[in-house]
Amino acid sequence: MELTHLDSEGKARMVDVGEKSETTREAHAFGRVRMSPEAYKQVRSGYGPKGDIFTVAKIAGIMGGKRTSDLIPLCHPLPINVIDVDYVFKDDEYTIEIRSTAKTKALTGVEMEAMTTVMVTALTIYDMCKAIDKGIELGPFYLLEKRGGKSGIYRRAKETV
Amino acid sequence: MELTHLDSEGKARMVDVGEKSETTREAHAFGRVRMSPEAYKQVRSGYGPKGDIFTVAKIAGIMGGKRTSDLIPLCHPLPINVIDVDYVFKDDEYTIEIRSTAKTKALTGVEMEAMTTVMVTALTIYDMCKAIDKGIELGPFYLLEKRGGKSGIYRRAKETV
Amino acid sequence: MELTHLDSEGKARMVDVGEKSETTREAHAFGRVRMSPEAYKQVRSGYGPKGDIFTVAKIAGIMGGKRTSDLIPLCHPLPINVIDVDYVFKDDEYTIEIRSTAKTKALTGVEMEAMTTVMVTALTIYDMCKAIDKGIELGPFYLLEKRGGKSGIYRRAKETV
Amino acid sequence: MELTHLDSEGKARMVDVGEKSETTREAHAFGRVRMSPEAYKQVRSGYGPKGDIFTVAKIAGIMGGKRTSDLIPLCHPLPINVIDVDYVFKDDEYTIEIRSTAKTKALTGVEMEAMTTVMVTALTIYDMCKAIDKGIELGPFYLLEKRGGKSGIYRRAKETV
Amino acid sequence: MELTHLDSEGKARMVDVGEKSETTREAHAFGRVRMSPEAYKQVRSGYGPKGDIFTVAKIAGIMGGKRTSDLIPLCHPLPINVIDVDYVFKDDEYTIEIRSTAKTKALTGVEMEAMTTVMVTALTIYDMCKAIDKGIELGPFYLLEKRGGKSGIYRRAKETV
Amino acid sequence: MELTHLDSEGKARMVDVGEKSETTREAHAFGRVRMSPEAYKQVRSGYGPKGDIFTVAKIAGIMGGKRTSDLIPLCHPLPINVIDVDYVFKDDEYTIEIRSTAKTKALTGVEMEAMTTVMVTALTIYDMCKAIDKGIELGPFYLLEKRGGKSGIYRRAKETV
Repeated sequence: MELTHLDSEGKARMVDVGEKSETTREAHAFGRVRMSPEAYKQVRSGYGPKGDIFTVAKIAGIMGGKRTSDLIPLCHPLPINVIDVDYVFKDDEYTIEIRSTAKTKALTGVEMEAMTTVMVTALTIYDMCKAIDKGIELGPFYLLEKRGGKSGIYRRAKETV
Repeated sequence: MELTHLDSEGKARMVDVGEKSETTREAHAFGRVRMSPEAYKQVRSGYGPKGDIFTVAKIAGIMGGKRTSDLIPLCHPLPINVIDVDYVFKDDEYTIEIRSTAKTKALTGVEMEAMTTVMVTALTIYDMCKAIDKGIELGPFYLLEKRGGKSGIYRRAKETV
Repeated sequence: MELTHLDSEGKARMVDVGEKSETTREAHAFGRVRMSPEAYKQVRSGYGPKGDIFTVAKIAGIMGGKRTSDLIPLCHPLPINVIDVDYVFKDDEYTIEIRSTAKTKALTGVEMEAMTTVMVTALTIYDMCKAIDKGIELGPFYLLEKRGGKSGIYRRAKETV
Repeated sequence: MELTHLDSEGKARMVDVGEKSETTREAHAFGRVRMSPEAYKQVRSGYGPKGDIFTVAKIAGIMGGKRTSDLIPLCHPLPINVIDVDYVFKDDEYTIEIRSTAKTKALTGVEMEAMTTVMVTALTIYDMCKAIDKGIELGPFYLLEKRGGKSGIYRRAKETV
Repeated sequence: MELTHLDSEGKARMVDVGEKSETTREAHAFGRVRMSPEAYKQVRSGYGPKGDIFTVAKIAGIMGGKRTSDLIPLCHPLPINVIDVDYVFKDDEYTIEIRSTAKTKALTGVEMEAMTTVMVTALTIYDMCKAIDKGIELGPFYLLEKRGGKSGIYRRAKETV
Repeated sequence: MELTHLDSEGKARMVDVGEKSETTREAHAFGRVRMSPEAYKQVRSGYGPKGDIFTVAKIAGIMGGKRTSDLIPLCHPLPINVIDVDYVFKDDEYTIEIRSTAKTKALTGVEMEAMTTVMVTALTIYDMCKAIDKGIELGPFYLLEKRGGKSGIYRRAKETV
């Protein structure tokens, strides 16, 4: 295996995807936001009729995911069929879990879009909660699964935390 | 303490910084990238005369940091005096540690710029190494320190990992 | 009929266009700018050899239209075959009418591109004329026609003003 | 009065704000979205615990407002103290009214930020509702009020619709 | 003199402008577009009542100049008082000369904004004329003058072509 | 031959590429950066283990090239298979030569992407070296070659400098 983003001299390069085939591809990524019990409770109770932290963060994640190739230097601009974000609330760990989905039909995969989406979602939660807890921890973030393309299906062995 | 990004009905809002004072402010954030031993060794040996993964990632982090208010919905656009990125290589843990600095003279702080910088730096390392290790873990990310503004100095008690 | 941008819980979501078919699609939108007689006359006489308000506004509209998916959270990035802008001057109503065209071959339509184009064109006219008339009114804006895709042709019954 | 965005030959130009003074400035703009009764009812009932059309549109409006100088060719990039969006629901007219606020301390005003904010908010509502009503009308949009700067206070005489 | 964009190890870095003083600064840059006689004549005759190549290119240059810090990795985002573009037509050399002006009151200079403006202006002329002459040459581009800041006035000795 | 970017009245317009065929296309562009002997030597010696001016500039060029349709008003957004940048150092002329490659499979060509890439690469070198030489000259820039599409292969007759 080799670092395809580096040429034979170790210089950075964009991978030429011209020889790859246009297939349906999808990727799922995971991320976590952990707060103090006090902050978590305040945020959590605010999730309901009035609290829209999680809507704002989801929107930011989707918009960030659409802009992946603008943020990550060697990423290819891709058509996006859909980007989605879901939350799971782990009340006993004062933790919000974020899962993203990205799908395309393109010459290369959408792993980076899925990863960017969870990370911008988490950053936005951080921004909206930092006034009550500066110690919030974001992460870990990792790829859960990818499908499509020559390398086929990847599924993470376990979700390590 | 209250969630300043939510108004009395729980609707998201941008904080009006018009009453805050323009002072020198800085923030430092931390992030971590952990790889498989095999991937780490390949990347690490590539760090030298030829390997520029870490330059590319640093540049991406700085550019991402400059674009924070474009990514995070309720962030204020700020003048930036400097954004910087440093790496520490933890060879026995197959881990790269990233520390960012952001400085401004403005009505509000640069915590989000420091956080965005470490996260985009990490995402870019991920992008450049995912061909050899899809299981790379990014995080945790957190604020190390902030200075300036009415709330004064914050320094994280311990660096939890 | 249902609000496809909301899931079953009413949460916002991006529509997955993966099942839609790639066809030629086009859309036309309409918008209006109405000024005071004094402002209109000054602007109108300036339309000729020297006055390039309308060129600047058209360019801004096209550039804005190309950036639709960056502005509108749940819009899909699309290839664009062409975006165009035309003006009709209604001298007796001190009104400028704007019509836009957007075309693509894609999995989803370009209505939002056509709408964004007329609105950014109008905003730019406003910007260039606000020094002489702060009371300028923009609108109404609406879709005139769309073609292509499963739902076929839509044509607005009448142009209401 | 003259068109300050045109030079003596009628060519477009950016106004040099170097001689203007840095003062607190604010602007308020108005916009309207009118739907079919059926669409309005569906959207309106969706406004509550689950429906977040209006949160998504508000976020888009704020983000669009922060990007005004990127969209409007001759606008100056400005620091933004705050941008806000409020809705009023006119149930008997199947109409949503949008009001925006923008504030800065800068050499020039934030009218364009206020106008861009209401228009991107309206465009986003359109995007999220066009599946149930393609005939939605956006507008009129106009400036309600501005304060600060040499020209002082402007307040629209009446809200024409 | 030293390369302030490189630290002591030769790694790229953003210069910290926090110690610099906020003063009025301006910069002027120069660029040239040279075409075949046939293309030049066609473009030149098109410059008048109808031809707006040069308006489009000027607008693109101004918009590009406002986005300098987004394009150039280590540039600081700056407030911009004005950016302007002027053309001189050298008919006997089939050449268009472009001069830009950029002004700010900031902690660092606007040389990059002036340079980016002339280069994006030239690129846009190229784009609009490449259908009739693929051999168009852009350049040279250089700084004509800068004022303000600790290093004072710089004025290019001669305009080399 | 006609200026396809102008309509019959000389107004700017975007070309409708809907009738063109989707084929593999590529383009190569050239650009030059010339410095004072002193600056060149300092930069050149810095090219090696530590100096990453050229990596930063290459990354900026690739990112700028990906954003071509955002910068150049009438350019079409395109999928990009690859963008690449190479340097040749002409030590006896204190000159750095830049060559770019852009490839796509699309309805229209990537000449503008190739040109934007060399120009943003050169601008970034300028930015990183202007502290030691304000007189740096950028250019000429021109298209070396293009392939694909109805007009077939273009290859520049000679490299004029």
